[in-house]
Amino acid sequence: MRSGKPDQTRPGEFELIARLFAPLAAGWPGACGLTDDVAYLPLEGDLVAPGEELVLKTDAIVAGVHFLVEDPPDLVARKLLRVNLSDLAAKGARPLVYLLAIMLPASIDFGWLVRFTEGLRADQQAFGLHLAGGDTDATPGPLTLAATLLGAVPAGRRMLREGARAGDGVFVSGTIGDGALGLKAIRGELAGLTPAQLAALAHRYRLPEPRLALGARLRGLAHATMDISDGLVGDLEHICEASRVGAIIEAVRVPLSEAARAALARNPALIESVLGGGDDYELLFAAPISAEGALGALGRELGVPIARVGRIVAGERVQALDQEGRRLALAQRGYRHF
Amino acid sequence: MRSGKPDQTRPGEFELIARLFAPLAAGWPGACGLTDDVAYLPLEGDLVAPGEELVLKTDAIVAGVHFLVEDPPDLVARKLLRVNLSDLAAKGARPLVYLLAIMLPASIDFGWLVRFTEGLRADQQAFGLHLAGGDTDATPGPLTLAATLLGAVPAGRRMLREGARAGDGVFVSGTIGDGALGLKAIRGELAGLTPAQLAALAHRYRLPEPRLALGARLRGLAHATMDISDGLVGDLEHICEASRVGAIIEAVRVPLSEAARAALARNPALIESVLGGGDDYELLFAAPISAEGALGALGRELGVPIARVGRIVAGERVQALDQEGRRLALAQRGYRHF
Repeated sequence: MRSGKPDQTRPGEFELIARLFAPLAAGWPGACGLTDDVAYLPLEGDLVAPGEELVLKTDAIVAGVHFLVEDPPDLVARKLLRVNLSDLAAKGARPLVYLLAIMLPASIDFGWLVRFTEGLRADQQAFGLHLAGGDTDATPGPLTLAATLLGAVPAGRRMLREGARAGDGVFVSGTIGDGALGLKAIRGELAGLTPAQLAALAHRYRLPEPRLALGARLRGLAHATMDISDGLVGDLEHICEASRVGAIIEAVRVPLSEAARAALARNPALIESVLGGGDDYELLFAAPISAEGALGALGRELGVPIARVGRIVAGERVQALDQEGRRLALAQRGYRHF
Repeated sequence: MRSGKPDQTRPGEFELIARLFAPLAAGWPGACGLTDDVAYLPLEGDLVAPGEELVLKTDAIVAGVHFLVEDPPDLVARKLLRVNLSDLAAKGARPLVYLLAIMLPASIDFGWLVRFTEGLRADQQAFGLHLAGGDTDATPGPLTLAATLLGAVPAGRRMLREGARAGDGVFVSGTIGDGALGLKAIRGELAGLTPAQLAALAHRYRLPEPRLALGARLRGLAHATMDISDGLVGDLEHICEASRVGAIIEAVRVPLSEAARAALARNPALIESVLGGGDDYELLFAAPISAEGALGALGRELGVPIARVGRIVAGERVQALDQEGRRLALAQRGYRHF
C-alpha cells in the first residue's frame, strides 16, 4: 500500500527535508536537525520557564475544505500555523514549537513546497516558533496538512471555556465576519463591493491574525476565553455550555470592518454569515462589565480593538438580537465540520 | 471551502467527540474532557518526573498508502499509535499522551469509528497512554490519520542515530521482514504458504509491536538506535550517515520468523523485501560486540529475541552479504515515501 514510486517532479523525501524543512529547524537544537526519529523538548532549558505547564493543540486543514488549492502556498502555511496559534492565544499561551504532518498529492511540485516553507519561516519569525519535527507522505487525495503546536502557560492559572458568570460582558477582539465574507468574496458571491473591499475580506480569510499578545494579557481579567473559529454564536454557545449560562448578543454592537459594513449595507441577510460563518480567529471572552474600561485601554495599547457585543445571562440559550431588540432567527449558528 | 454539509450517516462532530473520544480522555484531567480548545500537560504533576525531558513525534497514515481501507478499524487505530510508539521505543521513551487529527471521508460510518476508538482504547491501556486532544474534519479524499505522541526520557541521556562506532555490532530485535511479507500475503502475492503462515505475516503487517520495554533498557548499552520502519538496510544507512561510518549485514544472521523462512525457501528473491521492505517496527541499534552476551540475556528477560546481524565498519557504505560472503545487489534498500 505504500506506492513507493519515486516522483520525478520533485526531490525525494530526504532531500525535501534536508533542503526545505531542516533549515526551519536549524535554530533549535531539540529538533536534532530533523535527522533523528523524534524531537526533544528540554524542560530545564531556555524554552520552558519554571512554574509553567505546556499547552497542546493539533489542527489539520484539507485542500478544498479549509483552503483553496489555488491559494498562495505561503499563505496556506501561515494559515495552518495561525489556526493553531489562535487557540494558543485564547489560552494566553506562549508558542514554543510545532510538528507537521503533510500529505502531498502528486500535483504539489517543488516550487509549491518552496513557497510553503517560506510561509512557515515568516510565521516562525513572527511568532517565535521553532519547527521540531514532522512527517511527509504521499496521498492519492487532496493536499492535507496537520500541525501540532506546543505552548507554555503559567501553571495553575488556566483560562478555560468554563467560568463565565451571569452579569459578565461578552467581548470580542478585532472585527467579526470578515473571514466568512472573505470566502464569499473569493467565490465571487459578494456583489457591489469595490476591488479593495473584496481584497481586504479575502485577505482576512486567508491570513487570520492570532491575538497572542492580547490573550496573554487577559489572564486575571477574563472569566472564560476561546477563539472564534466556527462562528461567534456557535462558539459563544460552547462557552455557555461549559459555564452553564446563557448569553445575549446585540448584533448592532458586533464590530465590523469597513468592507463588512459595505457588504451588509447591500445585503442585510449576510448578518447570518457574520454571526455564524466562522473563520474569524478573533478572541471571544467573558469578563466583568466593570472591566470594560480597562479592556478598552488594553486594546488601544495593543492596537487591537476590543468591543463588548453582549452579556452573559442565566439560562442556557444564546440569543442574538437585532437593532430593535428582536430575536434574530439564525439558521447557521456555527460551522459544522461534517 | 468548508463543505458544511451535515452527513446523515453518522453523528455530528461534537456528538462524535462526546460519545467516542471523550471517554478516551476521561482518565487524564489535562485533556479537559476534550471540551476546551487545548490540552494541558503539567510539568510538576504525576506524568513527568523531575530530571526528564520530553520526546515529540508525529506520524500520519493514509488509507491506500499505509494501510488497507478494508483493514479492521481497531487494528488501523492501533497501527497508527504503534508506528509512533515504535519511534519512542527506539529513543527509550516512556509514552505519555497523544493527539489525533483525523480526516474522514463520507464512507466512514459511525460503526467504523466505534471500532476505531476500541482499538485506541486497547492500546492506551496496553501502553499507558492518554488521549490529550484532537481534530476531526471531513475530507473528499482517503481516510487520513495523524497522531502526535509525547513521551518522556531522562534529560541528558539521549539515544540518537549518531554514535555508532567502527567495531560495534549491529543488532535487531524480533524478526525482520514479516511486515513487508505480510503486505504481500494480504495482496495474495505469496505462493505456497499455509493459511496459518499467511495469517501470521499479515498480522505482523497490521499490528506492529513497539519495543518500549527493550528501548528503555538500551540506555547505556547502545551507541546508536532507531526503529526499522523503512527497511533494515535503508534505516541502517540512516544510522551510518549520522554516525559517519559504514556497516556490513550478514543476511544469514538476519532473524526470520517461521513463516518468513518458508516464504524465502520457496522464493529466495524475497530476501530483498526482507532487508529493504520496511514495516518491521523492530529496534535497530549499534552496541559494542562485547555486549552481545548481556543483550542476549536482556532479550530473554523481556521475551524479545535480540540478534546481531552484522557490524559497523569504517567508511560510509552499508553492504549486505549472502551466505558465501558475496555482496547482495539490492535494488530496494528502503521505502521511499514518494
